[in-house]
Amino acid sequence: MAMLRAGAAARQLVDRAVGSRAAHTSAGSKKIVGVFYQAGEYADKNPNFVGCVEGALGIRDWLESKGHNYIVTDDKEGLNSELEKHIEDMHVLITTPFHPAYVTAERIKKAKNLELLLTAGIGSDHIDLPAAAAAGLTVAEVTGSNTVSVAEDELMRILILLRNFLPGYQQVVQGEWNVAGIAHRAYDLEGKTVGTVGAGRIGRLLLQRLKPFNCNLLYHDRLQINPELEKEIGAKFEEDLDAMLPKCDVIVINTPLTEKTRGMFNKEKIAKMKKGVIIVNNARGAIMDTQAVADACSSGHVAGYGGDVWFPQPAPKDHPWRYMPNHAMTPHISGTTIDAQLRYAAGVKDMLDRYFKGEDFPAENYIVKEGELASQYK
Amino acid sequence: MAMLRAGAAARQLVDRAVGSRAAHTSAGSKKIVGVFYQAGEYADKNPNFVGCVEGALGIRDWLESKGHNYIVTDDKEGLNSELEKHIEDMHVLITTPFHPAYVTAERIKKAKNLELLLTAGIGSDHIDLPAAAAAGLTVAEVTGSNTVSVAEDELMRILILLRNFLPGYQQVVQGEWNVAGIAHRAYDLEGKTVGTVGAGRIGRLLLQRLKPFNCNLLYHDRLQINPELEKEIGAKFEEDLDAMLPKCDVIVINTPLTEKTRGMFNKEKIAKMKKGVIIVNNARGAIMDTQAVADACSSGHVAGYGGDVWFPQPAPKDHPWRYMPNHAMTPHISGTTIDAQLRYAAGVKDMLDRYFKGEDFPAENYIVKEGELASQYK
Repeated sequence: MAMLRAGAAARQLVDRAVGSRAAHTSAGSKKIVGVFYQAGEYADKNPNFVGCVEGALGIRDWLESKGHNYIVTDDKEGLNSELEKHIEDMHVLITTPFHPAYVTAERIKKAKNLELLLTAGIGSDHIDLPAAAAAGLTVAEVTGSNTVSVAEDELMRILILLRNFLPGYQQVVQGEWNVAGIAHRAYDLEGKTVGTVGAGRIGRLLLQRLKPFNCNLLYHDRLQINPELEKEIGAKFEEDLDAMLPKCDVIVINTPLTEKTRGMFNKEKIAKMKKGVIIVNNARGAIMDTQAVADACSSGHVAGYGGDVWFPQPAPKDHPWRYMPNHAMTPHISGTTIDAQLRYAAGVKDMLDRYFKGEDFPAENYIVKEGELASQYK
Repeated sequence: MAMLRAGAAARQLVDRAVGSRAAHTSAGSKKIVGVFYQAGEYADKNPNFVGCVEGALGIRDWLESKGHNYIVTDDKEGLNSELEKHIEDMHVLITTPFHPAYVTAERIKKAKNLELLLTAGIGSDHIDLPAAAAAGLTVAEVTGSNTVSVAEDELMRILILLRNFLPGYQQVVQGEWNVAGIAHRAYDLEGKTVGTVGAGRIGRLLLQRLKPFNCNLLYHDRLQINPELEKEIGAKFEEDLDAMLPKCDVIVINTPLTEKTRGMFNKEKIAKMKKGVIIVNNARGAIMDTQAVADACSSGHVAGYGGDVWFPQPAPKDHPWRYMPNHAMTPHISGTTIDAQLRYAAGVKDMLDRYFKGEDFPAENYIVKEGELASQYK
């Protein structure tokens, strides 16, 4: 609870005195709001495309058959947004990291009926977690639902940057052919040193997929992986991050966004990396100092930066990462493949079902359980 | 020798009667011609960039110190090209698959002093092999020098196409943000069926790298891999190609270009594949029917086609693969990473050294040895 702000902490004491809101029984009709990205012309292109506003996680009929009110929108910013209209009386808010409804302390204060915040996917940093905890709310995600999706995407971006794929693709569509323009800075992954900052679920899946590439694999985390798994993965523990950084040809960020990791990779940290390093970050954009990354790509100290996470999201048109050299950026997509959507939609449905029945969620899904923050966020 | 044309076979008999040219002793000064891609402004950007005209495989000083004449050019097409000027009196021609000097029967006939054709890399289909064999020449490549480079690139392109990376990248650079436009046709690799047509050196390296992705792995080849290695790789043998094709979500072409494989994937073969299949081909462009591939991408039967091989190379500005939907094409680059260049340059130097000394090359490097075609080309 070290991160609780004084005001929120005081409010928590009041809330606890009257009973945690999330501990209320969940009988009766609920108002459930879902904030997803809009599909528009793409909505009908795939029957399994459930992660968009139009798909609504495929749970509308089920919710309405149980008498609940289900509002779905992509309009999430500002006091005139569709989301804002429903904040006062909604019981449950579902959103995704791909098009996040930012849940500020102000919104939590306004949301008198709110009991449950669900993330369809992984990563709940769009929520002011201390404020949510102070309000006695429950925050949960679908842990594991898209870890494989994100790890696969990380390995793809490592290869794209190291092998200098994108200038080759651009030549093709522009009618050109210049092998040298690509080959002079294209490398194999084999034999390179790859370090992950964070070796949780996604970091481990990445290391396992890297193993047959015959790299030198390193990882930094708070805790060492148990020796048996470490041996199976074939990666070496680096207790001191600053000692690991200069060894790596490729650095992958696999740590959650917390108050400790926000802005962690600033100018000084990037300067500790090897000249010509490749960085891949599918964790959260705000872990990086935006301008420091753009400057290091421009100077060439960083030979390539790739990822799908930005702050804020959607990224504004003038975000410097859109225009820096040697990037492999996309909108936030790695965890929202069709396969991942089906998994996190099923996970959300399961948690809603348990919520209606007053049952606990799978333990690993909790970020805040009835006002208590999960250990990694404390 | 089944593929020898009658005229060439007759010439071979004549040549054999006077002794194979490649069997000549190699004493004295030789004229060696290298045909590589031009680097221009990129030549000085990397001291290890040896694969270009300017880098000249890093063997100029060594060759000249031994008294040999070393001509290097990228000008290879037509009767007025720089290459053509040297054909009559050159002893050795070195070229690469990335910017191949096409060695036709006519050029072989004209090249009275020619003894040795070396491929800096893998794949010697730019040479009329029956004509080279008939002329008693030796053709050799640097087997294994870039197999890892190509296998890594294949896995990258599978991920790029399956996960629908490129529309996301284009959105970023165009100032847009539309997650649905990407996600409605993005998939994980996990759980998909991947089949390789050909499981030689590159195909096996690809299968090994695919193993931790938890796919269903299939391979078609003339021969089954030995059971122990097959178990280690975790792939199932498919004797009948036409039975394998409809099972695959992803098909990778890993077969050499021979008279048997030229144009093999035509309209009928592609129609046997699953609707929505992804095809990756880093083998040779001419294995595909160019227009059939473009048509299948346009109709959506093929959901994505990626590779770095074309016919001819450089690909003309109006090549239909440049403009078909859902492609991940580049110029021919996968085997010419800096790491690969250093390996194939070392391999060429080693073979030249053996040639000067009258020694045999490593057995696996021969495509034509003193007029005899290697078994896979017969």
